[in-house]
Amino acid sequence: MAGHNVTIENTIKALTDGRKYSTIKDILVTMNGADIAAVFEEISKDKIPLLFRLLPKKLAAETFVEMSTDLQELLIQGFSNAELREVIEELYVDDVADLIDEMPANVVKRILDHADPEMRRDINEILKYPENSAGSIMTTEYISLKPNMTIDEALRRIRETAVDKETVYTCYVTENRKLIGVVTLKEILLVKDDNTRISDIMNPNVISVHTTDEREEVAKQLSKYNFIAMPVIDNEGMLVGIITFDDAMDVIEKETTEDIEKMAAILPSEKGYLQSKAIDIYKQRIPWLLLLMVSATFTGMIISMFEAALAAQVVLTAFIPMLMDTGGNAGSQASVTVIRALSLGNVSFRDLPKVIWKEFRAAILSGLSLAAVCFFKILLIDRLFLGNKDVTLLVSAVVCATLAVTVIAAKIIGGTLPMLAEKLGFDPAVMSSPFITTIIDAISLLVYFGFASLLLFR
Amino acid sequence: MAGHNVTIENTIKALTDGRKYSTIKDILVTMNGADIAAVFEEISKDKIPLLFRLLPKKLAAETFVEMSTDLQELLIQGFSNAELREVIEELYVDDVADLIDEMPANVVKRILDHADPEMRRDINEILKYPENSAGSIMTTEYISLKPNMTIDEALRRIRETAVDKETVYTCYVTENRKLIGVVTLKEILLVKDDNTRISDIMNPNVISVHTTDEREEVAKQLSKYNFIAMPVIDNEGMLVGIITFDDAMDVIEKETTEDIEKMAAILPSEKGYLQSKAIDIYKQRIPWLLLLMVSATFTGMIISMFEAALAAQVVLTAFIPMLMDTGGNAGSQASVTVIRALSLGNVSFRDLPKVIWKEFRAAILSGLSLAAVCFFKILLIDRLFLGNKDVTLLVSAVVCATLAVTVIAAKIIGGTLPMLAEKLGFDPAVMSSPFITTIIDAISLLVYFGFASLLLFR
Repeated sequence: MAGHNVTIENTIKALTDGRKYSTIKDILVTMNGADIAAVFEEISKDKIPLLFRLLPKKLAAETFVEMSTDLQELLIQGFSNAELREVIEELYVDDVADLIDEMPANVVKRILDHADPEMRRDINEILKYPENSAGSIMTTEYISLKPNMTIDEALRRIRETAVDKETVYTCYVTENRKLIGVVTLKEILLVKDDNTRISDIMNPNVISVHTTDEREEVAKQLSKYNFIAMPVIDNEGMLVGIITFDDAMDVIEKETTEDIEKMAAILPSEKGYLQSKAIDIYKQRIPWLLLLMVSATFTGMIISMFEAALAAQVVLTAFIPMLMDTGGNAGSQASVTVIRALSLGNVSFRDLPKVIWKEFRAAILSGLSLAAVCFFKILLIDRLFLGNKDVTLLVSAVVCATLAVTVIAAKIIGGTLPMLAEKLGFDPAVMSSPFITTIIDAISLLVYFGFASLLLFR
Repeated sequence: MAGHNVTIENTIKALTDGRKYSTIKDILVTMNGADIAAVFEEISKDKIPLLFRLLPKKLAAETFVEMSTDLQELLIQGFSNAELREVIEELYVDDVADLIDEMPANVVKRILDHADPEMRRDINEILKYPENSAGSIMTTEYISLKPNMTIDEALRRIRETAVDKETVYTCYVTENRKLIGVVTLKEILLVKDDNTRISDIMNPNVISVHTTDEREEVAKQLSKYNFIAMPVIDNEGMLVGIITFDDAMDVIEKETTEDIEKMAAILPSEKGYLQSKAIDIYKQRIPWLLLLMVSATFTGMIISMFEAALAAQVVLTAFIPMLMDTGGNAGSQASVTVIRALSLGNVSFRDLPKVIWKEFRAAILSGLSLAAVCFFKILLIDRLFLGNKDVTLLVSAVVCATLAVTVIAAKIIGGTLPMLAEKLGFDPAVMSSPFITTIIDAISLLVYFGFASLLLFR
């Protein structure tokens, strides 16, 4: 299997070993920051400061923000004061604030010491907002215009200040720092008449968010309105920052991962899978496993209660896994569907009756078809093919009736619990598969033994 | 419970009943298209054409694209030819192509008949690409510049053509329609020297996608590079369209919903939950429920094989649900984590050894702690508190040993199967909870009866 594996990582590794730095530089400058950062993650750590110094200033900053926290820290530890100042100067304020959130105290001190006073003030503004709030992810580098500016004045102002702004494509109109309008650069460029003022073309019905709004909510709003940036205002209606679409996309990705983790009974983590240590993964997973294991005591108790009856009809035991699993699957289908709809804002608590009615009808259809198929499956496979004579018609009837009732209960419970959780202020994602399964297990066993008592244990 | 419920929907409903159309118009023009569309979904259908006609042209188009397919069809059916032409003219080409994808044949014919020839050509260009490809979601309305243009010429060109372009903030430099560079409007505005040409400031290392690339892949690329738009090229390297960030955000939302649905054993659907009929929901859910139910025959067979032994030690039955559920939960934790990491591009097949090693260590930790807690739980709750004398020390040992082995197997299988599925070209999301659970069920029972035979059935 001696084959070639020409990836950009391997090429750069080989060139680094051969000290061909000018060739490496020629390659790196054709690349995008995100791609260079990905290459750096694959290269031995002692080479990275060397390679990083090959990058021109702007590309260096673009690469820096895309790197993992570990590599960022490694680089900062190795930077001279001048180098550190240069990188910080090129970064946007929100990225420096993110960095400060992640770095150990001594590194934070060095960063703040080398940021210029204006940036230090802006960073402190961002850092004072609670984690996961709009204020904590905004940047203070936006373009603000005055309502009485002419188009030419506005364009000149944009051109003069653009270099430090995270976006210049949506401009915010303020009066005494109060946000009174919004205008896009496209709208400004489309104006033909030089006498037009910003107040003539701005949209005074500004959609904005508040500094303390949840970052997830803000990202959803931005996505709903297809904005390039969302303005953030404080209690007095003053414009304090903006959140750009790329940061909103990152927030949505993170929050969706969290939702998916919660649905699978995992405590959320900020770190990527490969970056997490085995012990961290263990810590994310063990609490729910323990809780769910202990709560399975109830199902055990139910079985113990019917132990004598089961001993007389051991054949019933063989169907317990199928009944529990199908109930669990039916319940998690409903809960996952509703959790996702809640998270996308397609469903809210006032839709509860609609949800129950929809789930009820889908459940009747599912329950009946599963029971029917199950009945024929038992007759064909278990009785005829496997020749299990203990599986009488009456046993089949008990199994299939349980299946139908369990599936119907599972779908209604699965569809309802996430909505109740949201109403009560809990995260609906927790009301997902594992939790629902534990409840449905108990229900299916009670129904099973109920039908069995009625039809078999007499 | 006679309370007030002053929502914008209710206000507009009341005003509509009172025929206060000029007041309604005053309200609507302050609103965003997405919000007006949401209000329309709540209002009785016969009123909508009337209210829609109150909207100014541009806002009408913005509202139209945000409405549900049903309402769009209703409106088009009621449009005069002139009205239809006016709305189509205001829409972007990709939105018209989307509309055509959704509408019945007679409506499609009317739309195409009333689109101008240039738009008809562009629509046909988009419609010829396969579903879910980059070509099928792109728009042909981008700004293209020539390399030898001066900054002034470029700016004039942008201002002249901007009105019809979906974005003007990233401009594409072409020569004989070949894509040779990219330049942002911000970069253009930052140039001080009037003699600068576009070729001096453009980035010649253009990141682009191909018309036949998967739309999901394209959306991820755009998000990775923080682009406002991603250029789409054909086989000859000709620029044929762009995909903007807002469409990429929609794609990511849809594809994530699909992933989540697949993880919960649901067939994906394009429709929202509340818009789906109960029968559609049934059809999305029943295939996997049936398949998983029938495959549970294996677990049933395993129990049947040990029926005689179980009859002698019925106490073992009480722990079956706990063992199966904990194994299933442990397995789906691992599979969901790996599926999400694969989908985000954080993990790929070559990381398989790393994943197995990480899961193995996390599994040992989880298996041992669960077994230890379970042992004390059985002694304390089942024996002491519930006084179940059948739960001997030997039974506890069998249960806890099974738990440890099952959890370890579950984590390794759960972490590995999604990666193998991806390698074999299947969707890894299908290798999730329900599927893994069925496999783990069988394994846990085999291990359980194995340990029981060794320690109890002698």
